[in-house]
Amino acid sequence: MKGMKPFQPDEATDAEVAAEAAAFGPLAQAVRELADAALRSTVDAATAREATARIQEVTARLAADQLPGSYGVRYRPDGQGRPWGNAVIGLRNPIAPPLDPVREGERSEGRISADFDLGAVYEGPPGLVHGGVVSLILDQMLGQAAGSGGRPGMTGTLTIVYRQGTPLGPLRAEAWIDRSEGIKTWAKGHIVGPDGITAEAEGVFILPRWARELIEKRGPDAATPAYYE
Amino acid sequence: MKGMKPFQPDEATDAEVAAEAAAFGPLAQAVRELADAALRSTVDAATAREATARIQEVTARLAADQLPGSYGVRYRPDGQGRPWGNAVIGLRNPIAPPLDPVREGERSEGRISADFDLGAVYEGPPGLVHGGVVSLILDQMLGQAAGSGGRPGMTGTLTIVYRQGTPLGPLRAEAWIDRSEGIKTWAKGHIVGPDGITAEAEGVFILPRWARELIEKRGPDAATPAYYE
Repeated sequence: MKGMKPFQPDEATDAEVAAEAAAFGPLAQAVRELADAALRSTVDAATAREATARIQEVTARLAADQLPGSYGVRYRPDGQGRPWGNAVIGLRNPIAPPLDPVREGERSEGRISADFDLGAVYEGPPGLVHGGVVSLILDQMLGQAAGSGGRPGMTGTLTIVYRQGTPLGPLRAEAWIDRSEGIKTWAKGHIVGPDGITAEAEGVFILPRWARELIEKRGPDAATPAYYE
Repeated sequence: MKGMKPFQPDEATDAEVAAEAAAFGPLAQAVRELADAALRSTVDAATAREATARIQEVTARLAADQLPGSYGVRYRPDGQGRPWGNAVIGLRNPIAPPLDPVREGERSEGRISADFDLGAVYEGPPGLVHGGVVSLILDQMLGQAAGSGGRPGMTGTLTIVYRQGTPLGPLRAEAWIDRSEGIKTWAKGHIVGPDGITAEAEGVFILPRWARELIEKRGPDAATPAYYE
Protein backbone atom coordinates (compact mmCIF):
# COMPACT_ATOMS: atom_id res chain seq x y z
CA MET A 1 0.00 0.00 0.00
CA LYS A 2 1.11 3.50 -0.86
CA GLY A 3 3.11 5.08 1.92
CA MET A 4 3.50 1.85 3.80
CA LYS A 5 6.99 0.85 4.80
CA PRO A 6 8.32 -2.33 3.21
CA PHE A 7 7.82 -5.63 4.97
CA GLN A 8 10.28 -5.66 7.82
CA PRO A 9 11.72 -8.96 9.09
CA ASP A 10 12.46 -9.26 12.79
CA GLU A 11 16.12 -10.09 13.19
CA ALA A 12 16.13 -10.05 17.00
CA THR A 13 16.72 -13.33 18.84
CA ASP A 14 14.14 -14.56 21.35
CA ALA A 15 16.42 -13.43 24.19
CA GLU A 16 16.77 -9.96 22.67
CA VAL A 17 13.01 -9.69 22.26
CA ALA A 18 12.50 -10.69 25.90
CA ALA A 19 15.15 -8.20 27.08
CA GLU A 20 13.55 -5.36 25.09
CA ALA A 21 10.13 -6.19 26.56
CA ALA A 22 11.55 -6.28 30.09
CA ALA A 23 13.22 -2.87 29.78
CA PHE A 24 10.84 -0.92 27.54
CA GLY A 25 7.46 -2.38 28.58
CA PRO A 26 7.75 -0.85 32.08
CA LEU A 27 9.04 2.40 30.53
CA ALA A 28 5.87 2.72 28.42
CA GLN A 29 3.75 1.89 31.47
CA ALA A 30 5.52 4.62 33.48
CA VAL A 31 4.76 7.14 30.72
CA ARG A 32 1.08 6.03 30.74
CA GLU A 33 0.90 6.74 34.47
CA LEU A 34 2.68 10.06 33.99
CA ALA A 35 0.19 11.07 31.28
CA ASP A 36 -2.70 10.39 33.67
CA ALA A 37 -1.02 12.36 36.46
CA ALA A 38 -0.12 15.28 34.16
CA LEU A 39 -3.76 15.56 33.07
CA ARG A 40 -5.33 15.31 36.55
CA SER A 41 -2.70 17.14 38.59
CA THR A 42 -3.68 20.21 40.60
CA VAL A 43 -0.18 21.06 41.87
CA ASP A 44 0.92 24.69 41.75
CA ALA A 45 2.41 26.24 38.63
CA ALA A 46 6.00 26.12 39.92
CA THR A 47 5.75 22.36 40.55
CA ALA A 48 4.24 21.84 37.09
CA ARG A 49 7.10 23.79 35.52
CA GLU A 50 9.72 21.83 37.43
CA ALA A 51 8.06 18.55 36.40
CA THR A 52 8.13 19.75 32.77
CA ALA A 53 11.87 20.41 32.98
CA ARG A 54 12.60 17.00 34.54
CA ILE A 55 10.54 15.26 31.85
CA GLN A 56 12.45 17.11 29.13
CA GLU A 57 15.73 15.83 30.62
CA VAL A 58 14.51 12.23 30.52
CA THR A 59 13.27 12.72 26.94
CA ALA A 60 16.68 14.01 25.87
CA ARG A 61 18.41 10.93 27.33
CA LEU A 62 16.00 8.51 25.65
CA ALA A 63 16.12 10.35 22.32
CA ALA A 64 19.93 10.37 22.27
CA ASP A 65 19.77 6.95 20.61
CA GLN A 66 16.56 6.21 18.71
CA LEU A 67 14.97 4.77 15.58
CA PRO A 68 15.05 7.22 12.67
CA GLY A 69 11.27 6.93 12.16
CA SER A 70 8.27 5.14 13.61
CA TYR A 71 8.50 1.76 15.31
CA GLY A 72 6.83 -0.23 12.53
CA VAL A 73 5.90 -3.87 12.81
CA ARG A 74 8.59 -6.54 12.91
CA TYR A 75 7.61 -9.93 11.52
CA ARG A 76 9.04 -13.04 13.20
CA PRO A 77 10.22 -15.92 11.02
CA ASP A 78 6.96 -17.75 11.80
CA GLY A 79 4.99 -14.88 10.23
CA GLN A 80 3.73 -13.47 13.52
CA GLY A 81 4.02 -9.72 13.90
CA ARG A 82 5.50 -7.84 16.85
CA PRO A 83 3.44 -4.66 16.72
CA TRP A 84 4.91 -3.01 19.81
CA GLY A 85 4.34 0.47 18.40
CA ASN A 86 0.62 -0.08 17.66
CA ALA A 87 -1.65 2.68 19.03
CA VAL A 88 -4.03 0.17 20.65
CA ILE A 89 -2.07 -2.97 21.51
CA GLY A 90 1.55 -1.74 21.43
CA LEU A 91 3.59 -2.88 24.43
CA ARG A 92 5.99 0.03 23.87
CA ASN A 93 3.35 2.63 22.94
CA PRO A 94 2.40 4.90 25.85
CA ILE A 95 -0.89 5.99 24.26
CA ALA A 96 -2.02 2.33 23.89
CA PRO A 97 -4.05 1.17 26.95
CA PRO A 98 -2.69 -1.46 25.83
CA LEU A 99 -5.23 -4.12 24.89
CA ASP A 100 -4.14 -7.76 24.93
CA PRO A 101 -6.82 -9.62 22.93
CA VAL A 102 -7.06 -13.38 23.43
CA ARG A 103 -8.44 -15.91 20.97
CA GLU A 104 -11.64 -17.75 21.86
CA GLY A 105 -13.20 -20.77 20.14
CA GLU A 106 -12.36 -22.10 16.68
CA ARG A 107 -9.72 -20.29 14.58
CA SER A 108 -12.10 -20.00 11.60
CA GLU A 109 -14.50 -17.85 13.66
CA GLY A 110 -11.70 -15.41 14.46
CA ARG A 111 -13.33 -14.78 17.82
CA ILE A 112 -11.25 -12.67 20.22
CA SER A 113 -11.89 -10.74 23.42
CA ALA A 114 -10.04 -8.24 25.58
CA ASP A 115 -10.60 -6.93 29.08
CA PHE A 116 -9.11 -3.50 29.70
CA ASP A 117 -9.44 -0.31 31.68
CA LEU A 118 -9.66 3.21 30.27
CA GLY A 119 -8.64 6.19 32.41
CA ALA A 120 -8.89 9.96 32.17
CA VAL A 121 -6.76 10.37 29.02
CA TYR A 122 -9.42 8.53 26.97
CA GLU A 123 -12.23 10.93 27.94
CA GLY A 124 -14.65 12.67 25.58
CA PRO A 125 -17.93 13.75 27.21
CA PRO A 126 -17.49 14.17 30.97
CA GLY A 127 -16.93 10.77 32.62
CA LEU A 128 -17.32 8.92 29.33
CA VAL A 129 -14.92 7.36 26.86
CA HIS A 130 -14.47 9.55 23.74
CA GLY A 131 -16.69 8.20 20.94
CA GLY A 132 -13.62 8.16 18.71
CA VAL A 133 -11.66 6.09 21.24
CA VAL A 134 -14.54 3.58 21.12
CA SER A 135 -14.07 3.42 17.33
CA LEU A 136 -10.27 3.20 17.69
CA ILE A 137 -10.56 0.13 19.90
CA LEU A 138 -13.25 -1.51 17.78
CA ASP A 139 -11.21 -0.97 14.58
CA GLN A 140 -8.28 -2.79 16.15
CA MET A 141 -10.47 -5.58 17.55
CA LEU A 142 -12.30 -6.21 14.26
CA GLY A 143 -9.08 -6.12 12.23
CA GLN A 144 -7.42 -8.47 14.66
CA ALA A 145 -10.44 -10.83 14.63
CA ALA A 146 -10.12 -11.04 10.84
CA GLY A 147 -6.39 -11.75 11.16
CA SER A 148 -6.91 -14.18 14.00
CA GLY A 149 -9.24 -16.18 11.76
CA GLY A 150 -6.58 -16.34 9.04
CA ARG A 151 -8.14 -13.46 7.07
CA PRO A 152 -5.85 -10.49 7.80
CA GLY A 153 -6.57 -7.18 6.11
CA MET A 154 -6.58 -3.43 6.33
CA THR A 155 -9.77 -1.55 7.17
CA GLY A 156 -11.91 -0.78 4.11
CA THR A 157 -15.07 0.49 5.82
CA LEU A 158 -15.93 0.77 9.50
CA THR A 159 -19.37 1.55 10.95
CA ILE A 160 -19.96 2.18 14.64
CA VAL A 161 -23.42 2.38 16.23
CA TYR A 162 -23.37 3.97 19.67
CA ARG A 163 -26.04 2.51 21.99
CA GLN A 164 -25.17 4.36 25.20
CA GLY A 165 -22.25 6.28 26.66
CA THR A 166 -19.22 4.11 27.48
CA PRO A 167 -18.11 4.95 31.03
CA LEU A 168 -14.42 5.32 31.84
CA GLY A 169 -13.19 2.33 33.87
CA PRO A 170 -13.19 -1.44 33.31
CA LEU A 171 -14.51 -2.56 29.92
CA ARG A 172 -14.59 -5.59 27.64
CA ALA A 173 -14.38 -5.79 23.85
CA GLU A 174 -15.35 -8.77 21.70
CA ALA A 175 -15.00 -9.29 17.95
CA TRP A 176 -15.46 -12.07 15.41
CA ILE A 177 -15.58 -12.83 11.68
CA ASP A 178 -19.07 -12.52 10.27
CA ARG A 179 -18.33 -13.71 6.70
CA SER A 180 -15.71 -13.52 3.97
CA GLU A 181 -15.50 -13.44 0.19
CA GLY A 182 -12.29 -13.34 -1.85
CA ILE A 183 -9.90 -10.79 -0.37
CA LYS A 184 -12.67 -9.20 1.75
CA THR A 185 -13.62 -10.17 5.28
CA TRP A 186 -16.54 -8.75 7.26
CA ALA A 187 -15.98 -8.61 11.00
CA LYS A 188 -18.27 -7.54 13.82
CA GLY A 189 -17.77 -6.65 17.44
CA HIS A 190 -18.86 -4.61 20.41
CA ILE A 191 -17.79 -3.00 23.66
CA VAL A 192 -19.43 -4.06 26.90
CA GLY A 193 -19.63 -1.78 29.94
CA PRO A 194 -21.19 -2.26 33.39
CA ASP A 195 -24.68 -1.72 31.88
CA GLY A 196 -24.27 -3.93 28.80
CA ILE A 197 -23.28 -3.25 25.22
CA THR A 198 -22.32 0.39 24.66
CA ALA A 199 -21.32 0.33 20.98
CA GLU A 200 -21.45 -2.11 18.07
CA ALA A 201 -19.21 -2.21 15.03
CA GLU A 202 -19.08 -3.77 11.60
CA GLY A 203 -16.11 -3.49 9.28
CA VAL A 204 -14.76 -4.76 5.98
CA PHE A 205 -11.11 -5.75 5.95
CA ILE A 206 -9.17 -6.11 2.72
CA LEU A 207 -5.94 -8.02 2.24
CA PRO A 208 -3.40 -5.57 0.75
CA ARG A 209 -1.58 -6.53 -2.45
CA TRP A 210 1.85 -6.77 -0.83
CA ALA A 211 0.49 -9.22 1.73
CA ARG A 212 -1.18 -11.32 -0.97
CA GLU A 213 2.11 -11.55 -2.84
CA LEU A 214 3.92 -12.52 0.34
CA ILE A 215 1.40 -15.23 1.18
CA GLU A 216 1.63 -16.59 -2.40
CA LYS A 217 5.41 -16.68 -2.19
CA ARG A 218 5.34 -18.56 1.10
CA GLY A 219 2.61 -20.97 0.08
CA PRO A 220 -0.88 -21.40 1.44
CA ASP A 221 0.15 -23.48 4.46
CA ALA A 222 2.48 -20.90 6.03
CA ALA A 223 1.17 -18.94 9.01
CA THR A 224 -0.10 -15.49 8.08
CA PRO A 225 0.55 -12.38 10.12
CA ALA A 226 -2.31 -12.02 12.59
CA TYR A 227 -3.10 -8.46 11.52
CA TYR A 228 -1.73 -5.48 9.68
CA GLU A 229 -2.42 -2.78 12.21
CA MET B 1 -26.81 10.44 29.56
CA LYS B 2 -26.27 7.44 31.79
CA GLY B 3 -22.83 7.48 33.37
CA MET B 4 -22.14 11.04 32.31
CA LYS B 5 -21.05 13.43 35.01
CA PRO B 6 -23.42 16.29 35.71
CA PHE B 7 -22.97 19.54 33.86
CA GLN B 8 -19.99 21.23 35.43
CA PRO B 9 -19.74 25.04 35.52
CA ASP B 10 -16.30 26.58 35.21
CA GLU B 11 -15.68 28.72 38.23
CA ALA B 12 -12.14 29.75 37.29
CA THR B 13 -11.48 33.40 36.46
CA ASP B 14 -9.97 34.29 33.08
CA ALA B 15 -6.62 34.87 34.81
CA GLU B 16 -6.76 31.45 36.47
CA VAL B 17 -7.61 29.79 33.16
CA ALA B 18 -4.65 31.53 31.50
CA ALA B 19 -2.32 30.55 34.34
CA GLU B 20 -3.43 26.90 34.15
CA ALA B 21 -2.85 26.86 30.39
CA ALA B 22 0.59 28.42 30.77
CA ALA B 23 1.73 25.85 33.36
CA PHE B 24 -0.03 22.67 32.25
CA GLY B 25 -0.08 23.09 28.46
CA PRO B 26 3.73 22.78 28.26
CA LEU B 27 3.62 19.88 30.75
CA ALA B 28 1.28 17.93 28.46
CA GLN B 29 3.50 18.78 25.48
CA ALA B 30 6.57 17.51 27.37
CA VAL B 31 4.77 14.21 28.06
CA ARG B 32 3.86 13.94 24.35
CA GLU B 33 7.53 14.29 23.42
CA LEU B 34 8.51 11.78 26.11
CA ALA B 35 5.95 9.27 24.78
CA ASP B 36 7.48 9.55 21.30
CA ALA B 37 11.01 9.13 22.69
CA ALA B 38 10.03 6.18 24.92
CA LEU B 39 8.57 4.37 21.91
CA ARG B 40 11.45 5.02 19.51
CA SER B 41 14.38 4.87 21.90
CA THR B 42 17.16 2.34 21.36
CA VAL B 43 19.17 3.13 24.50
CA ASP B 44 20.48 0.23 26.57
CA ALA B 45 18.34 -1.51 29.19
CA ALA B 46 20.04 0.20 32.13
CA THR B 47 19.28 3.65 30.70
CA ALA B 48 15.67 2.64 30.03
CA ARG B 49 15.32 1.44 33.62
CA GLU B 50 16.81 4.64 35.02
CA ALA B 51 14.47 6.71 32.85
CA THR B 52 11.55 4.65 34.17
CA ALA B 53 12.53 5.41 37.76
CA ARG B 54 12.91 9.15 37.10
CA ILE B 55 9.51 9.25 35.37
CA GLN B 56 7.91 7.51 38.36
CA GLU B 57 9.36 10.19 40.66
CA VAL B 58 7.82 12.98 38.56
CA THR B 59 4.49 11.12 38.45
CA ALA B 60 4.46 10.85 42.26
CA ARG B 61 5.02 14.61 42.63
CA LEU B 62 2.27 15.46 40.15
CA ALA B 63 -0.17 12.93 41.62
CA ALA B 64 0.36 14.23 45.17
CA ASP B 65 -2.39 16.77 44.50
CA GLN B 66 -4.88 15.82 41.80
CA LEU B 67 -8.51 15.68 40.72
CA PRO B 68 -10.34 12.69 42.23
CA GLY B 69 -11.49 11.51 38.78
CA SER B 70 -11.22 12.45 35.13
CA TYR B 71 -10.77 16.05 33.97
CA GLY B 72 -14.28 16.46 32.58
CA VAL B 73 -15.42 19.49 30.62
CA ARG B 74 -15.85 22.85 32.36
CA TYR B 75 -18.44 25.16 30.84
CA ARG B 76 -17.74 28.89 30.87
CA PRO B 77 -20.60 31.27 31.74
CA ASP B 78 -21.01 32.00 28.00
CA GLY B 79 -21.75 28.30 27.39
CA GLN B 80 -18.42 27.55 25.75
CA GLY B 81 -16.72 24.38 26.95
CA ARG B 82 -13.12 24.04 28.12
CA PRO B 83 -12.46 20.43 27.13
CA TRP B 84 -8.81 20.31 28.17
CA GLY B 85 -8.99 16.60 28.97
CA ASN B 86 -10.42 15.61 25.57
CA ALA B 87 -8.56 12.74 23.88
CA VAL B 88 -8.28 14.62 20.55
CA ILE B 89 -8.27 18.35 21.28
CA GLY B 90 -7.38 18.48 24.99
CA LEU B 91 -4.67 21.04 25.79
CA ARG B 92 -3.82 19.10 28.97
CA ASN B 93 -4.20 15.60 27.49
CA PRO B 94 -0.85 14.03 26.50
CA ILE B 95 -2.46 11.49 24.16
CA ALA B 96 -4.23 14.27 22.18
CA PRO B 97 -2.10 15.46 19.21
CA PRO B 98 -3.84 17.97 20.01
CA LEU B 99 -6.01 19.22 17.17
CA ASP B 100 -7.07 22.87 17.17
CA PRO B 101 -9.96 23.08 14.68
CA VAL B 102 -10.83 26.51 13.29
CA ARG B 103 -14.19 27.62 11.94
CA GLU B 104 -14.51 28.41 8.23
CA GLY B 105 -17.36 30.10 6.38
CA GLU B 106 -20.89 30.61 7.70
CA ARG B 107 -21.81 29.34 11.16
CA SER B 108 -24.83 27.42 9.80
CA GLU B 109 -22.56 25.23 7.68
CA GLY B 110 -20.55 24.24 10.74
CA ARG B 111 -17.48 24.04 8.53
CA ILE B 112 -14.20 23.52 10.42
CA SER B 113 -10.68 22.47 9.55
CA ALA B 114 -7.54 21.47 11.40
CA ASP B 115 -3.93 21.06 10.35
CA PHE B 116 -1.96 18.67 12.53
CA ASP B 117 0.93 16.24 12.60
CA LEU B 118 0.80 12.62 13.72
CA GLY B 119 3.96 10.91 14.95
CA ALA B 120 5.02 7.37 15.84
CA VAL B 121 2.56 6.85 18.72
CA TYR B 122 -0.38 7.01 16.28
CA GLU B 123 0.92 4.17 14.08
CA GLY B 124 -1.03 1.11 12.94
CA PRO B 125 0.35 -0.54 9.77
CA PRO B 126 4.06 0.29 9.33
CA GLY B 127 4.48 3.98 8.49
CA LEU B 128 0.73 4.60 8.45
CA VAL B 129 -1.72 6.13 10.89
CA HIS B 130 -3.77 3.47 12.70
CA GLY B 131 -7.18 3.13 10.99
CA GLY B 132 -8.78 3.60 14.39
CA VAL B 133 -6.87 6.84 14.99
CA VAL B 134 -8.28 8.06 11.66
CA SER B 135 -11.77 7.32 13.01
CA LEU B 136 -10.93 8.92 16.37
CA ILE B 137 -9.99 12.20 14.70
CA LEU B 138 -12.93 12.14 12.29
CA ASP B 139 -15.39 11.47 15.14
CA GLN B 140 -14.12 14.56 16.95
CA MET B 141 -14.11 16.70 13.79
CA LEU B 142 -17.66 15.71 12.78
CA GLY B 143 -19.03 16.19 16.29
CA GLN B 144 -17.31 19.52 16.56
CA ALA B 145 -18.62 20.60 13.12
CA ALA B 146 -22.16 19.85 14.34
CA GLY B 147 -21.54 21.86 17.50
CA SER B 148 -19.81 24.65 15.63
CA GLY B 149 -22.94 25.01 13.49
CA GLY B 150 -25.11 25.32 16.59
CA ARG B 151 -26.17 21.67 16.46
CA PRO B 152 -24.13 19.99 19.21
CA GLY B 153 -24.66 16.31 19.89
CA MET B 154 -23.18 13.00 20.86
CA THR B 155 -22.23 10.46 18.22
CA GLY B 156 -25.13 8.17 17.23
CA THR B 157 -23.59 6.42 14.23
CA LEU B 158 -20.22 6.90 12.56
CA THR B 159 -19.13 5.41 9.22
CA ILE B 160 -15.59 5.67 7.90
CA VAL B 161 -14.58 4.74 4.35
CA TYR B 162 -10.84 4.27 3.95
CA ARG B 163 -9.60 5.31 0.47
CA GLN B 164 -5.85 4.84 0.96
CA GLY B 165 -3.40 4.52 3.82
CA THR B 166 -2.92 7.74 5.84
CA PRO B 167 0.82 8.36 6.18
CA LEU B 168 2.27 9.53 9.49
CA GLY B 169 3.30 13.19 9.29
CA PRO B 170 1.48 16.43 8.40
CA LEU B 171 -2.25 16.04 7.72
CA ARG B 172 -5.40 18.09 7.40
CA ALA B 173 -8.95 17.30 8.50
CA GLU B 174 -12.12 19.03 7.33
CA ALA B 175 -15.73 18.58 8.49
CA TRP B 176 -19.09 20.21 7.94
CA ILE B 177 -22.82 19.82 8.57
CA ASP B 178 -24.57 17.95 5.77
CA ARG B 179 -28.17 18.28 7.05
CA SER B 180 -30.24 18.25 10.24
CA GLU B 181 -33.68 17.20 11.41
CA GLY B 182 -35.04 17.68 14.93
CA ILE B 183 -32.42 16.61 17.47
CA LYS B 184 -30.33 14.82 14.80
CA THR B 185 -27.54 16.34 12.76
CA TRP B 186 -25.68 14.62 9.94
CA ALA B 187 -22.08 15.70 9.53
CA LYS B 188 -19.45 14.73 6.99
CA GLY B 189 -15.71 15.11 6.78
CA HIS B 190 -12.42 13.72 5.57
CA ILE B 191 -8.70 13.57 6.17
CA VAL B 192 -6.30 14.83 3.52
CA GLY B 193 -2.73 13.56 3.19
CA PRO B 194 0.05 14.40 0.73
CA ASP B 195 -1.70 12.31 -1.97
CA GLY B 196 -5.23 13.59 -1.39
CA ILE B 197 -8.18 12.31 0.62
CA THR B 198 -7.29 9.23 2.65
CA ALA B 199 -10.56 8.62 4.51
CA GLU B 200 -14.11 9.94 4.46
CA ALA B 201 -16.63 9.97 7.29
CA GLU B 202 -20.33 10.46 7.85
CA GLY B 203 -21.93 10.60 11.27
CA VAL B 204 -25.21 11.28 13.02
CA PHE B 205 -25.01 13.43 16.13
CA ILE B 206 -27.83 13.52 18.65
CA LEU B 207 -28.43 16.21 21.25
CA PRO B 208 -28.57 14.45 24.63
CA ARG B 209 -31.59 15.04 26.86
CA TRP B 210 -29.63 16.87 29.58
CA ALA B 211 -28.34 19.33 27.00
CA ARG B 212 -31.82 19.87 25.55
CA GLU B 213 -33.13 20.68 29.03
CA LEU B 214 -30.23 23.07 29.62
CA ILE B 215 -30.81 24.86 26.31
CA GLU B 216 -34.54 25.16 27.08
CA LYS B 217 -33.78 26.61 30.49
CA ARG B 218 -31.41 29.18 29.05
CA GLY B 219 -33.64 30.12 26.14
CA PRO B 220 -33.05 29.66 22.42
CA ASP B 221 -30.83 32.73 22.01
CA ALA B 222 -28.11 31.69 24.49
CA ALA B 223 -24.87 30.32 23.04
CA THR B 224 -24.75 26.52 23.06
CA PRO B 225 -21.68 24.52 24.00
CA ALA B 226 -19.68 23.90 20.85
CA TYR B 227 -19.57 20.11 21.35
CA TYR B 228 -20.05 17.40 23.91
CA GLU B 229 -16.90 15.44 23.34
